[in-house]
Amino acid sequence: MTRGQILFNATVVSMNPRREIFGDGALAWEGGRIVAVGRSQEVLQQHPEFDRIDGEAGLLAPGFIDAHNHSAHFLTKGLLDDVAVEERWKTRLYPFEQAVSADEAYWGASGTFAEQLLHGTTCVGDPGSAHPHAVARAAEDTGIRLLLAGSTTDSFDAARPLSPEGGSDADAAAARNERLFDELDGAASGRIRVAFGLWSDSTVSDALCKRVRDLAERRQAVIHGHLATREADNLNSLRQHGMRAVPRYHQLGVLGPRFTGAHAGAIDDAEVELLARAGATITHCPSASMLGGFGCIAHGRFPELVAAGVNVALGADAASISRFLDMPRLMYLAACAHKDVRRDATVLGAHAAMEMATLGGAQALGLRDTLGTLEPGKQADFVLLRTDGIEWQPRPLLNPVANLVYSSGGHRVDSVAVAGRLLVRHGRLMSRDFNELMERARTASQSIVSRAGLPEQRTWPVL
Amino acid sequence: MTRGQILFNATVVSMNPRREIFGDGALAWEGGRIVAVGRSQEVLQQHPEFDRIDGEAGLLAPGFIDAHNHSAHFLTKGLLDDVAVEERWKTRLYPFEQAVSADEAYWGASGTFAEQLLHGTTCVGDPGSAHPHAVARAAEDTGIRLLLAGSTTDSFDAARPLSPEGGSDADAAAARNERLFDELDGAASGRIRVAFGLWSDSTVSDALCKRVRDLAERRQAVIHGHLATREADNLNSLRQHGMRAVPRYHQLGVLGPRFTGAHAGAIDDAEVELLARAGATITHCPSASMLGGFGCIAHGRFPELVAAGVNVALGADAASISRFLDMPRLMYLAACAHKDVRRDATVLGAHAAMEMATLGGAQALGLRDTLGTLEPGKQADFVLLRTDGIEWQPRPLLNPVANLVYSSGGHRVDSVAVAGRLLVRHGRLMSRDFNELMERARTASQSIVSRAGLPEQRTWPVL
Repeated sequence: MTRGQILFNATVVSMNPRREIFGDGALAWEGGRIVAVGRSQEVLQQHPEFDRIDGEAGLLAPGFIDAHNHSAHFLTKGLLDDVAVEERWKTRLYPFEQAVSADEAYWGASGTFAEQLLHGTTCVGDPGSAHPHAVARAAEDTGIRLLLAGSTTDSFDAARPLSPEGGSDADAAAARNERLFDELDGAASGRIRVAFGLWSDSTVSDALCKRVRDLAERRQAVIHGHLATREADNLNSLRQHGMRAVPRYHQLGVLGPRFTGAHAGAIDDAEVELLARAGATITHCPSASMLGGFGCIAHGRFPELVAAGVNVALGADAASISRFLDMPRLMYLAACAHKDVRRDATVLGAHAAMEMATLGGAQALGLRDTLGTLEPGKQADFVLLRTDGIEWQPRPLLNPVANLVYSSGGHRVDSVAVAGRLLVRHGRLMSRDFNELMERARTASQSIVSRAGLPEQRTWPVL
Repeated sequence: MTRGQILFNATVVSMNPRREIFGDGALAWEGGRIVAVGRSQEVLQQHPEFDRIDGEAGLLAPGFIDAHNHSAHFLTKGLLDDVAVEERWKTRLYPFEQAVSADEAYWGASGTFAEQLLHGTTCVGDPGSAHPHAVARAAEDTGIRLLLAGSTTDSFDAARPLSPEGGSDADAAAARNERLFDELDGAASGRIRVAFGLWSDSTVSDALCKRVRDLAERRQAVIHGHLATREADNLNSLRQHGMRAVPRYHQLGVLGPRFTGAHAGAIDDAEVELLARAGATITHCPSASMLGGFGCIAHGRFPELVAAGVNVALGADAASISRFLDMPRLMYLAACAHKDVRRDATVLGAHAAMEMATLGGAQALGLRDTLGTLEPGKQADFVLLRTDGIEWQPRPLLNPVANLVYSSGGHRVDSVAVAGRLLVRHGRLMSRDFNELMERARTASQSIVSRAGLPEQRTWPVL
């Protein structure tokens, strides 16, 4: 067990049930868990033997949780810009997923986890890919916390291919996911957990839904899927199953406190109620919708979901479609974009977004008892941000959460810890050789682009 | 005249008519003007006697132009969050504008100009305020380029007060603006120019519109105003004048190549055509609409404006309603948000946004002949950004403009020059004492809040 440590002299946003902020606060932890949170003077007096870290008047918050991120897709960053959704799958993502090797997936996921940690994210939910063991190894080596889903689909459609793991056998897909659970759940000292996957409502049969529902119940595990991203998904569901996506999942018993669905840009008011009654989570991926043109912001119902009591988490979706893995920037979009849509500046806001990125993510990943707030007994996963940039001025601590979400961002991250281990310090990644990682990611990306014949874009001439 | 200088070893985004990017490029300038742009080796050979600055493989672009920014409102940052628009004016902005002194306006504008420069903005259009001379002095002392409009309104409405300069006399308002022009146009070695103002279509009489139109024509100057921000403005215009805002300005002869109107969130297709035929500029302020709930993104017609050939510029509007003065983040919103609204990933994009932030701004401020591109003969206004952050990986130069706009941002600014003078170097402001400036801005903000009784928000308890 490592020796106890105290980070003091910081504005501590605890996210505890009273949402207390300690203006001159401190956090103490030992053996990976938080032992005290409060005013600096009191916490320092309680633990005089602990090592001390000066927070330099920064902002200390629970580590951010990116609840939906295809981590291997770091390697496709820059290849999906301004490309229509169908073309994206056919000419970029499907060829990539067919071409990527386990070793390349390892370097891709390592790049995602490094970019996340450097921007304050301590925990990520990966919806699954062809090389889950490589992704898990990348998380173990980089130090981030991971909930990894199996990539399950049994309704493979060549016109709309969604995963190289796709087949037509519900039993085989479910068995593969169960095997993954047995092999990896609890790995890396418990930092790696496994979820059951339902790739997307358009690519899973009723039989697979029921198998996954039962497996998740037996294992007390999360079900992670894509849900009703666009109206096209509902039309597809109506054609195949005679029902829209959310009512279908409801009828199949998939919706429930274990279920977390990403995007949900195309749901109606009745479906908001179904999700609320089921206790399900929806993961909002606003930056993916911004670049991908999903319409989740302008046409989605996130303010209604929050109002109805649905747990809402935040996700970047993938480095290639978000283009940044910076949770405060995602919080900004979630906090503000719906104000514009509704022409109402009072909708949602920075504090609602902060809840999505911490508590909301913890619940989405089935980890609300151990993550999401800075409270004694919880895991010591935290982020310290510098507040000396001009964007924090002229009233830096008037409203620290609003200043972080509206004005600043993950580029101000100074230090990040997972289970009390400092993985980022003064803006530098401590757990990996950064230059080697980037060099390997560059090489892997270039190699896949060449092998798979992915089109590269140079909009303006580079001489 | 300062000695000639060359910045070399950078990816130079020239924004020239062919939009050429020089992968290993250089920029040479002398006496405030650009003398060469091209490949590093060639430019260095052409000017062996020039001082050399290593660009360290960064990205060099024309300085960004923030075409609409109420610069004194730096002091109200954090006081407008999540507040409905009417309440904002009545309980925050109007009391602030009545309370602010010339000295405080100087420190507020200095804060805005410092934050802009530190994020790569070299030129700003200010729509006017009660203390224009203080704002001009702040620009002169901070080194930024400024187009300052007179704050003209003659239809003061106590129920919707918009400026402490408001009165009921068109002649007096126009004369005040003309005097400002005579006193300040061309000040600070030409870095400060003066525009004529029409505060907003809801607060100017037909008589004032005609006076300003004629003055601007005589002085060959820009007319800067707010136009059709929300549907409420059109309803007000219909009530007062029997016409919506854009057709009214068209009929009064205000629209034309000199006219630049901010927001325009509530215009229809016919009005897009009127603006295109007139050759007018619209300044998109997406971050203001995000926090302010104007609806310009979800309900505006910016893709249609661009398609119709209307010049579109970008503006932050004010530090208090944008919450950041970072043009690449504004470019991101302009590039992506309309993709989400239209459910179409091919709408606008990074390159269109880069044009708005450089060429579009230059045209909006009547400075297209001297600003907006890196070409010989133009002013040496530029920004150098670092590209070694992880968000640029794994393919940093695959598409430099897309990487800047979609993944990175103004927080990566290394160096900024106006007329060849380096005002920011390695991320530090060179023209002012940063700590003094922030201390004075803090004091001024606190003093106004106390005197004017502005409500402060602390959403969560700070202990």
